[in-house]
Amino acid sequence: MGKKVFHELLSLDEAKQRLFNAFRERVSIPIDSETISVKSSLGRVTAEPVTAKFSSPYFHSAAMDGYAVRARDTFLASEREPVRLKIGVDAQWIETGDPLQDGFDAVIPVEDVNVRDGFIEIYASVPPYNDVRPIGEDIVATELIIPESHIVRAADIGAMLASGITEIRVRKKPVIGIIPTGSELIDAETIKQRMPNPPELIEYNSAVLGSLINEVGAEAKIYPVVPDEENAIKNAILNALKECDLLLLNAGSGYGKEDFTYKVLNELGEVIINGVAIKPGKPFIAGFINKKAVLGIPGYPVSAFLCFDLFVKPLIELYLGVSIKTEEELRAILSRQISSSIGVDEFVRVKVGRVGGKYIVTPMGRGAGLLMSVVRADGYIVIPRGSEGFSQGSEVTVHLWRSKNEINNTVVCIGSHDNTLDVLYNFVRKNYPHVTLSSAHVGSMGGLIAVKKGEAHIAGTHLLDEATGEYNVPFIKKLLPEKKVVLINLVYRIQGFIVKKGNPKNIRGFEDLAREDVIFINRQAGSGTRLLLDKHLKELGISPTAIKGYDRDEYTHMAVASAVLTGRADVGLGIFSAAQALGLDFIPVTEERYDILIPQEFFELPIIQAVLKVIREDKEFKEAVKSLGGYDIRDMGKTIYSN
Amino acid sequence: MGKKVFHELLSLDEAKQRLFNAFRERVSIPIDSETISVKSSLGRVTAEPVTAKFSSPYFHSAAMDGYAVRARDTFLASEREPVRLKIGVDAQWIETGDPLQDGFDAVIPVEDVNVRDGFIEIYASVPPYNDVRPIGEDIVATELIIPESHIVRAADIGAMLASGITEIRVRKKPVIGIIPTGSELIDAETIKQRMPNPPELIEYNSAVLGSLINEVGAEAKIYPVVPDEENAIKNAILNALKECDLLLLNAGSGYGKEDFTYKVLNELGEVIINGVAIKPGKPFIAGFINKKAVLGIPGYPVSAFLCFDLFVKPLIELYLGVSIKTEEELRAILSRQISSSIGVDEFVRVKVGRVGGKYIVTPMGRGAGLLMSVVRADGYIVIPRGSEGFSQGSEVTVHLWRSKNEINNTVVCIGSHDNTLDVLYNFVRKNYPHVTLSSAHVGSMGGLIAVKKGEAHIAGTHLLDEATGEYNVPFIKKLLPEKKVVLINLVYRIQGFIVKKGNPKNIRGFEDLAREDVIFINRQAGSGTRLLLDKHLKELGISPTAIKGYDRDEYTHMAVASAVLTGRADVGLGIFSAAQALGLDFIPVTEERYDILIPQEFFELPIIQAVLKVIREDKEFKEAVKSLGGYDIRDMGKTIYSN
Repeated sequence: MGKKVFHELLSLDEAKQRLFNAFRERVSIPIDSETISVKSSLGRVTAEPVTAKFSSPYFHSAAMDGYAVRARDTFLASEREPVRLKIGVDAQWIETGDPLQDGFDAVIPVEDVNVRDGFIEIYASVPPYNDVRPIGEDIVATELIIPESHIVRAADIGAMLASGITEIRVRKKPVIGIIPTGSELIDAETIKQRMPNPPELIEYNSAVLGSLINEVGAEAKIYPVVPDEENAIKNAILNALKECDLLLLNAGSGYGKEDFTYKVLNELGEVIINGVAIKPGKPFIAGFINKKAVLGIPGYPVSAFLCFDLFVKPLIELYLGVSIKTEEELRAILSRQISSSIGVDEFVRVKVGRVGGKYIVTPMGRGAGLLMSVVRADGYIVIPRGSEGFSQGSEVTVHLWRSKNEINNTVVCIGSHDNTLDVLYNFVRKNYPHVTLSSAHVGSMGGLIAVKKGEAHIAGTHLLDEATGEYNVPFIKKLLPEKKVVLINLVYRIQGFIVKKGNPKNIRGFEDLAREDVIFINRQAGSGTRLLLDKHLKELGISPTAIKGYDRDEYTHMAVASAVLTGRADVGLGIFSAAQALGLDFIPVTEERYDILIPQEFFELPIIQAVLKVIREDKEFKEAVKSLGGYDIRDMGKTIYSN
Repeated sequence: MGKKVFHELLSLDEAKQRLFNAFRERVSIPIDSETISVKSSLGRVTAEPVTAKFSSPYFHSAAMDGYAVRARDTFLASEREPVRLKIGVDAQWIETGDPLQDGFDAVIPVEDVNVRDGFIEIYASVPPYNDVRPIGEDIVATELIIPESHIVRAADIGAMLASGITEIRVRKKPVIGIIPTGSELIDAETIKQRMPNPPELIEYNSAVLGSLINEVGAEAKIYPVVPDEENAIKNAILNALKECDLLLLNAGSGYGKEDFTYKVLNELGEVIINGVAIKPGKPFIAGFINKKAVLGIPGYPVSAFLCFDLFVKPLIELYLGVSIKTEEELRAILSRQISSSIGVDEFVRVKVGRVGGKYIVTPMGRGAGLLMSVVRADGYIVIPRGSEGFSQGSEVTVHLWRSKNEINNTVVCIGSHDNTLDVLYNFVRKNYPHVTLSSAHVGSMGGLIAVKKGEAHIAGTHLLDEATGEYNVPFIKKLLPEKKVVLINLVYRIQGFIVKKGNPKNIRGFEDLAREDVIFINRQAGSGTRLLLDKHLKELGISPTAIKGYDRDEYTHMAVASAVLTGRADVGLGIFSAAQALGLDFIPVTEERYDILIPQEFFELPIIQAVLKVIREDKEFKEAVKSLGGYDIRDMGKTIYSN
């Protein structure tokens, strides 16, 4: 991956076409079939049409409890002149589901007859097949139940069994091998015994790819990790090809010294794709060995995830001869401008929220190494290679990884970050499983702006007004003069200096930040924590330029704590719980009020009420927040301000 | 089911509320948890929040191949005055992914330096952490990865493993027992050995319910069939309750002599629901025995299917503490009026098609015994109990059983029925797995009207003009004078008399239909076959009233053949392939032309072109049609008419 690529990359469309055409030419598709029991055929793909062996019902049966009669015997019946039929001769008692006795062709429900002296009296004529479930009412013998290339569902299983089909031909599941390569990779199970040591990396892509493969109806076969050695890789490939229909190598598809996929594939077979103009996922390789496709999947987790969708899943579809359910899509408004390089199709993970009737989409971190961005994303948008990006307010198509229903039940929380929000999310989820709390960390000011623009249901905020010493309200009045809002307290929290265990640099106050030997890590502009810092610096007459690291900022308390833990900084300003979580020391500076701002228009929404109910009434939630440390919940849920 | 119900039924809302409240009161939810391996946690529900054990990456590593340096050593570098750093002392070779060596804090990519005499020359300064993937870039230790009550997805598995989590607590799968009851029921496996004999019925509901249960993440446990005997049922229940969390009895929930669910539940525990005002599904029973819920599920397959959705799935959701993905919904226009009784919520299965940009919804057969209507349906609509139905053209909400994507790729074929349409569907599906062909059988005339109203993409038609002897074109000109259309031939086919094997009634011609000892089965008004009959009767001067059964009609050739096979009629008019399929005899009457009408506006749609390509070019399709018998394919795919 290190070296620049000088050869011309295929576009995504060209790459797909080339791969799928080559696959169709070389591989016999659809894959072979096998006979299985209908009872265990859920989700399998039919290899031939299934037609009814016999009808259902396969005999005329009573649809009601009553008497079986001959319809022609009833033709003259009327209220005035009832017809009398002898029970046991011209009328036979019959119960729902029972076969119609020979010679009878209609049923009269028991409540419509009068039984007297061994006869029934009938007051109206009935047509043939009255209250009879005729043969084949549901299924007629030889009728098509499900076609070929159909994914079997629960109801299909019932209809097949009902019509006498107990076994069917289905397509075999293609076996997709996954060979993790990389000398630094260790199996995840290793860390049950010990912590990893640099440069060891936990191998997890195979579990992700394997899950994705199994989910779409193929069978994943995960091989042990192979080191970055040409011959080891060759042998692993040749062995795996003996039992797999399709093979994925992960990683080694780049252009680095230890990337062997291209070389090995070229020697054992032929390479048809070497790099694709997509982002992430560029170093994707495809080739064939003995008429079996071997794909080089990039190592970064997001690239691997994307390459599955773009290349692996379509090949599984070709094997199975079906179109596997694709993501739902929706149109949404971009909350901010997003740019991309010309020449690559870029896949950008996004958050989507439904706020005030419109769907708002916000791009997330774009690094190929950010697997958490996939975990947290609601879906993705594509910036096509001919485009430099989209402007704020554009309508874009979002490919959803969550259902629209989930999106509709998501509380969009934009603003300041606090660890209690994670805890809140857990408790909301526990009490209201259909509600999701999605929080984006853009600082207190960013949250107020999001509320103003109608892009957030709630905003976490802790903005200290320098002039009055009051929290939040002055800013709300200034920034959102027109907006009807409710401000609810969540917690009071201790802000202070997060320092290494034992405070080796002996940080005591803001003055120490300007010391020559101290490196600081800042929060981003617009965050309440940054305002707090600036207020103190101003009071003390310390210039920001005197502080090493003032310009390096992070977006969350945890990221600040992490920078301290890992030695990127000596000190940062943040909350106690972040320091505690990472086992760092903490020097308290001040208590501040952290509130939640809710526009009146959203206040009565059931999803907002659900969140408020947790904040106000859930004792377990209160306990959980207290146990984080550094929080005071004396006003939790109290209305601070409303207009 | 036979007797009328006199007690007041609960409304659906009341029944749900009563059941779910009683469940919450009596059952400890969510269900217990267990520890499982992360690698096999796909689809399981978290029982507690999962937080990162360590950061990912957990060491600073190079993001590029190049040289590790100290950023402060580079501050003075410029094009004019490059900085020189000694390799091995002030600069260390490093490859992508390798840990940053102690004391170094930045990486300069290899392409940005000049290597000379054991030194690198640097032409620009770099900031600390230049081209470094810092610790925690993806995941920070202690960070929330997924919350409690979350259904684990592939990417979650990756993130958990990456951050050192190899085992998690998940909710146990609730075990849902299914006891099929009914003396007439036989296991589907029985019919591998022999055909069933009346009144035997193949038991298939347990396989359907079991599949539905497994699909939503619970565990189905299917018990052997229990006869309709009170004590046998009691024992089966008590035994099953030892190992199940929830129990379904199917059937026996009605009011018949052999329906024991109510009685048994009442004796062993308490009944809280006995019948619900829904259709289908009315005889639903719910009760509790020793704090475990036991549900009486009605026997009709559609009722059982619906009761799963309405009652069983929500209880599984309560056990698991999650909201399980619900169906997509869409708004669609009703193609015809639909009425329903006041007082019940009726669930009507429907077909949905997207024709010319709008979604058209058509109600299907409503019998609770029609499982094929579930197999063929695209979803359902609800007629609420306060409503008598919806008028034609109303916009209604459809709950989809297929994805919107599938609906969008469905060719809506409305009109005359021909067995080649089933074959065509199979071949379309095989060649274009994403395309579905949905055909509704309303007769040739109904097809023309559907095209006129913009409700069909294509219509099968074989209308013989009495005056000219010409097929279809005169009707198109008369009925659709304004519409631009293309008429394509599908087949010529033999129409004739379908009679019992050996032709016991010795049917030779239309004259025989009027015989005293002959019972006829007709096709519905507006069908081409009915027109054909009427033309011949008119020519021969035979009055329809002279024909017994003229008024009883069926909607498909197969249904006519089935009526003959099963003795409901002696003869019907239909196509050869229907007779052949059921092993009946056939007396040819005439060859007729069966065409497909396509509005010009839809002709170029890819889904229509896919169908045409099969009709025109697929040799296997032609062979399959010929092998049905009674067809001539000399003009298959030929354009007969266009305007």
